[in-house]
Amino acid sequence: MFSLGNKIVLTVFGSSHGPYIGGTVDGLPAGIEIDIEFIQKWLDRRRPGQSLITTQRNEYDIIDIIAGIKNNYTDGSPLTFIFKNKDYIDKHYDDLKENPRPGHADLTMYYKYGDYRNYEGGGFFSGRMTAVLVAAGAIAMHILKKYDIKIVTYIKSAGNISIEGNVPVDENYVYKFSTRMPDEDKDKELYNYILKIIKDGDSLGSIIHTSIYNIMPGIGEPYFNSVESEISRAMFSIPGLKAIEFGAGFKLGSMKGSQANDQFILNDNKIVTETNNSGGILGGITYGMPVEFNIAMKPASSIRIPQKTVNIKKMEASEIKVTGRHDPFIPLRAVPVIQTLSAFVILDLIMCNNSTNLKKD
Amino acid sequence: MFSLGNKIVLTVFGSSHGPYIGGTVDGLPAGIEIDIEFIQKWLDRRRPGQSLITTQRNEYDIIDIIAGIKNNYTDGSPLTFIFKNKDYIDKHYDDLKENPRPGHADLTMYYKYGDYRNYEGGGFFSGRMTAVLVAAGAIAMHILKKYDIKIVTYIKSAGNISIEGNVPVDENYVYKFSTRMPDEDKDKELYNYILKIIKDGDSLGSIIHTSIYNIMPGIGEPYFNSVESEISRAMFSIPGLKAIEFGAGFKLGSMKGSQANDQFILNDNKIVTETNNSGGILGGITYGMPVEFNIAMKPASSIRIPQKTVNIKKMEASEIKVTGRHDPFIPLRAVPVIQTLSAFVILDLIMCNNSTNLKKD
Amino acid sequence: MFSLGNKIVLTVFGSSHGPYIGGTVDGLPAGIEIDIEFIQKWLDRRRPGQSLITTQRNEYDIIDIIAGIKNNYTDGSPLTFIFKNKDYIDKHYDDLKENPRPGHADLTMYYKYGDYRNYEGGGFFSGRMTAVLVAAGAIAMHILKKYDIKIVTYIKSAGNISIEGNVPVDENYVYKFSTRMPDEDKDKELYNYILKIIKDGDSLGSIIHTSIYNIMPGIGEPYFNSVESEISRAMFSIPGLKAIEFGAGFKLGSMKGSQANDQFILNDNKIVTETNNSGGILGGITYGMPVEFNIAMKPASSIRIPQKTVNIKKMEASEIKVTGRHDPFIPLRAVPVIQTLSAFVILDLIMCNNSTNLKKD
Amino acid sequence: MFSLGNKIVLTVFGSSHGPYIGGTVDGLPAGIEIDIEFIQKWLDRRRPGQSLITTQRNEYDIIDIIAGIKNNYTDGSPLTFIFKNKDYIDKHYDDLKENPRPGHADLTMYYKYGDYRNYEGGGFFSGRMTAVLVAAGAIAMHILKKYDIKIVTYIKSAGNISIEGNVPVDENYVYKFSTRMPDEDKDKELYNYILKIIKDGDSLGSIIHTSIYNIMPGIGEPYFNSVESEISRAMFSIPGLKAIEFGAGFKLGSMKGSQANDQFILNDNKIVTETNNSGGILGGITYGMPVEFNIAMKPASSIRIPQKTVNIKKMEASEIKVTGRHDPFIPLRAVPVIQTLSAFVILDLIMCNNSTNLKKD
Repeated sequence: MFSLGNKIVLTVFGSSHGPYIGGTVDGLPAGIEIDIEFIQKWLDRRRPGQSLITTQRNEYDIIDIIAGIKNNYTDGSPLTFIFKNKDYIDKHYDDLKENPRPGHADLTMYYKYGDYRNYEGGGFFSGRMTAVLVAAGAIAMHILKKYDIKIVTYIKSAGNISIEGNVPVDENYVYKFSTRMPDEDKDKELYNYILKIIKDGDSLGSIIHTSIYNIMPGIGEPYFNSVESEISRAMFSIPGLKAIEFGAGFKLGSMKGSQANDQFILNDNKIVTETNNSGGILGGITYGMPVEFNIAMKPASSIRIPQKTVNIKKMEASEIKVTGRHDPFIPLRAVPVIQTLSAFVILDLIMCNNSTNLKKD
Repeated sequence: MFSLGNKIVLTVFGSSHGPYIGGTVDGLPAGIEIDIEFIQKWLDRRRPGQSLITTQRNEYDIIDIIAGIKNNYTDGSPLTFIFKNKDYIDKHYDDLKENPRPGHADLTMYYKYGDYRNYEGGGFFSGRMTAVLVAAGAIAMHILKKYDIKIVTYIKSAGNISIEGNVPVDENYVYKFSTRMPDEDKDKELYNYILKIIKDGDSLGSIIHTSIYNIMPGIGEPYFNSVESEISRAMFSIPGLKAIEFGAGFKLGSMKGSQANDQFILNDNKIVTETNNSGGILGGITYGMPVEFNIAMKPASSIRIPQKTVNIKKMEASEIKVTGRHDPFIPLRAVPVIQTLSAFVILDLIMCNNSTNLKKD
Repeated sequence: MFSLGNKIVLTVFGSSHGPYIGGTVDGLPAGIEIDIEFIQKWLDRRRPGQSLITTQRNEYDIIDIIAGIKNNYTDGSPLTFIFKNKDYIDKHYDDLKENPRPGHADLTMYYKYGDYRNYEGGGFFSGRMTAVLVAAGAIAMHILKKYDIKIVTYIKSAGNISIEGNVPVDENYVYKFSTRMPDEDKDKELYNYILKIIKDGDSLGSIIHTSIYNIMPGIGEPYFNSVESEISRAMFSIPGLKAIEFGAGFKLGSMKGSQANDQFILNDNKIVTETNNSGGILGGITYGMPVEFNIAMKPASSIRIPQKTVNIKKMEASEIKVTGRHDPFIPLRAVPVIQTLSAFVILDLIMCNNSTNLKKD
Repeated sequence: MFSLGNKIVLTVFGSSHGPYIGGTVDGLPAGIEIDIEFIQKWLDRRRPGQSLITTQRNEYDIIDIIAGIKNNYTDGSPLTFIFKNKDYIDKHYDDLKENPRPGHADLTMYYKYGDYRNYEGGGFFSGRMTAVLVAAGAIAMHILKKYDIKIVTYIKSAGNISIEGNVPVDENYVYKFSTRMPDEDKDKELYNYILKIIKDGDSLGSIIHTSIYNIMPGIGEPYFNSVESEISRAMFSIPGLKAIEFGAGFKLGSMKGSQANDQFILNDNKIVTETNNSGGILGGITYGMPVEFNIAMKPASSIRIPQKTVNIKKMEASEIKVTGRHDPFIPLRAVPVIQTLSAFVILDLIMCNNSTNLKKD
């Protein structure tokens, strides 16, 4: 099933070279304001072609909400939105049909769907589909404003360039930096490094950090709907994501309990912790400290450098060199996807928590 | 909801100090052989008290299947199993009631459930609940035998002791080593290090590796039911897990595409890759290479060393020193949990893939 | 899947001749009082052996809640309850194994589960399983008291004996009548008729009426979770139910709009209708009028009169005469099942309606 | 949630006066042929304006599949289709906004959604939405052809005109009759009666019969996914449906077991029954006999005759006379909705049955 969420459910549909891509968000109560400009702002941040270091493809990213709202407020029925695709002429994909690109889903599509696979432009495995995630996530992010929850996502490292913390609690701040690494010097350094990557016909991965501030305590459910379970499940739907860690993450593997435990102290009559090794989550549930996680995104698979592959029709060794314009630094475009998708997950978990209002006396 | 899975659904119930813990597995077809001895073997591997370095608590770990089988074959209805709990006298928990233990779910339980929280022994957040995961997972593991799928899990690192690969494709091999680190020298070294940790009243985290061998291509669904989504969602239900990475994981964040892409080659007329940076998964779907992932588990939160906490009734600073017997190296017991729970997830995904057998001509 | 409900989910398990039957109710918030005596009262009303006209079998109907409560309040985790079964000696069922009883699920079990079918005593198709429905329903009924919702169910007709309306708004009233037909004369008449049915070795069906009073407006969701959809889905899980109609039901099929429409009038400043042809439901949603429905239950299939069957092993014509004690008038025992199961459905729909409490300004 | 189905899931979206209505069908495997002409044929049968006795409104009923297919075969991703709506000028609905129409969802919409209700043209409660059900159902019906399953639906009675059985096993036969009552004389009689109803400004209800032929044994799941549970749940999503009975239905309420039980006999080496009082279903599961059910549909609520209502703003008695063109005999248009929706439910249940193909030896 192509659906995410427990109380609000996003279903994605469409593929790279079909007529439309889109999504349906079911479960929103009536009376929620939908701010189309706000959604479009987030979609624009995901859109390619914003600087030299991203692809110049001209995609069609204008959201069209075709159901579920009336006068810009939800009406209690599923909210469906679509994005028109460009008209493609599919001749460019003949080569790819038989020669799966390393790192892409071409081969697994073949194994799973056989002759019926929708391979042109990556079909429904295309990164273009993340526009749907951003749209649904931006709707959620707009609702989270009412709770004063703020989500900050940025590039923490790429290649051997990295930054350490102290990014302002501002959801828009990172977009001032062309590489989405929010440090003036490092941003330039990374920018130049990416130019080199482009010249080499190569691509670059990244570690991306997210902090969710002002989240109320008690969000998340035990076991399989824990904050970690829900965030990781959602994030791994983004193409190229291969790792996630909450709080101190993998460092906890070499720690002792006396180092790892975040001890409780009082601050302004609220219970806080001096460290945040748990990433703001205990037993899968929030307690008021920021939810923090890192994600590793692999470099874009499409590179101009020749690579070994196997012709799946002839079952013989072959070679492939992916042509056309591609993203040398795709993590840049993943930043708003992760940021808004986090909002979707958190909103869903808030609704799970809200859903228990039964009379008790 | 306390449920995991799409086509086979596990629902866990019970709590540490209630009369029983247990689970229901719904969705198993009729005619599946249930090998109780096999299940019990895996439960025993999770049981505490197997060596000096684990707790000496005497838990009740004998599985009792009370529904869903007839003559040791499934009958097509939900399979329910229970484990009896010991009779506890709850006086030991008065102190904990007001003074949440750092690193535990005590505080989040308070925020979420208020006065109705089930806090004794950690309630349903107790590590004891992982016996339910093992039972459900062992049922799945037994079924996976028919597909020749083998799952190997072991301790890869703890403290500054670590091993590098080359563990035999044998699901039982790791249990010859008291620390579950399958290397004779390192096992001893880790054993001695844990003895020191015990003496210090401290605890130790770990990185745990899992490989799933012989998995057929085409398993996993796009987007939110990808292999990564499903495995991570399940794993984060295990108390203390804070990070997961597939294949090269976080290393991919600093790689270039030309390094990260696993190029396709022919081997014995099968398509394989020389590297396995993707962890056997492309587009969320398997292609025949082993599925590989690392998990970071934080050290057990309960330590004898005094820690800062806040008395939640008086809202004033307090201190806590957890007494009683506890696990200095809980990852040891997590090994069979991760191993069997992986089996449950893979079986569910196989069933998702099987569920599409419609006539086409 | 053996599960019912959207926000509270009941999963049933067990079978007639296994060690236990039981159920798990997931989704109840913490802090709900569980009144075991109240639940047991409803279970007793379903129990056989309460008068001459019901079977004298001695079943084990004492509920044992093994998870999900602490000090008689829910703790936020799944509530699991079990009922012990009698130890059966299965020799009585050899004949049935090959000769499916007309009207029973014996033949469909064979088609669906083949050699693995759990046929003894009807397996999980046994009417005994309705004890699980009553237990879950009684929990819901206890919660509905806080909303002052009252559910009245009674036998409306059987054979050619029937009553017309005017039953008090009292959930317990009907249990004063041995046939559950709440009219002194008709109760006696039906009682005597059933004695004749017993003598003939036959059984009797019934039409059973239910009214749900004091339900708040706005309950039920559009389309597939309408009040009608949810109630009918639940009811058809009860063995022997074959028909349901809301409000004027089948009579609407021969009506004109000017007759069928319930016109709106004011009464005590509330909008009511003079007629209730819609059964209190418009567009699948309540509006304050009582929800009313009739259910048809077929006569118990097990009769002493010889019937034609086919030996499924030899595939040749055969005959069967069901021996042992059986229920001549099973609808009598269905009354509390329908009544409590209605409560479960209504509570679930109330929780669906509650689950949309998002901040809007 | 606006979703139906277990293994194939239809989500409906849109409303009468929004820009589009549509649906998404998730869960279809790749490689299923989608015959758009076939789907359109069924949509045309639901379309208004086909004879004097139906409304002359000109709706937009051309299906546009915007996702999930490639070269007319499913690609394994959700199939989404839309229908454009006419551009409405909403001034006609000012009166209705405050004066709910008796028999309509106007009042319950107000209770459930308050000021955010989508009331124009009935919003998402509009009968127009049944086009979405027909589209999804026709996709299923096309797949069922491969199993030789045939579904026949027709008007069985309306007013005091009714027919008894013997309709050919032909899915298209009924559409030769303008009233969908497949008997030449009765068709004319009903036609003339409806002309009188039109003249009176009134409307007419009906009882509609459905038979599902050639269904394989073993379809349907115990308890809450029984054939009866699934069909009734789906059917009650159709506006105006108030009753359903399987097999002998309400007649079973006055029968004895010796009359009601369908005895098993051999016919051509297959087990059949002489009667079909159970409607082809035992224990919720099919056994090869036709699945048979009757549905009662109330007359269309919109009539030209003045009716009592309450002005919900002023909370005072009011009167309403619904103007504009309306359907005097809406059951006529419900016939293809019920017929195709039955196909959707049966396909889903077949897929549930198929989903259990695990290796057993």
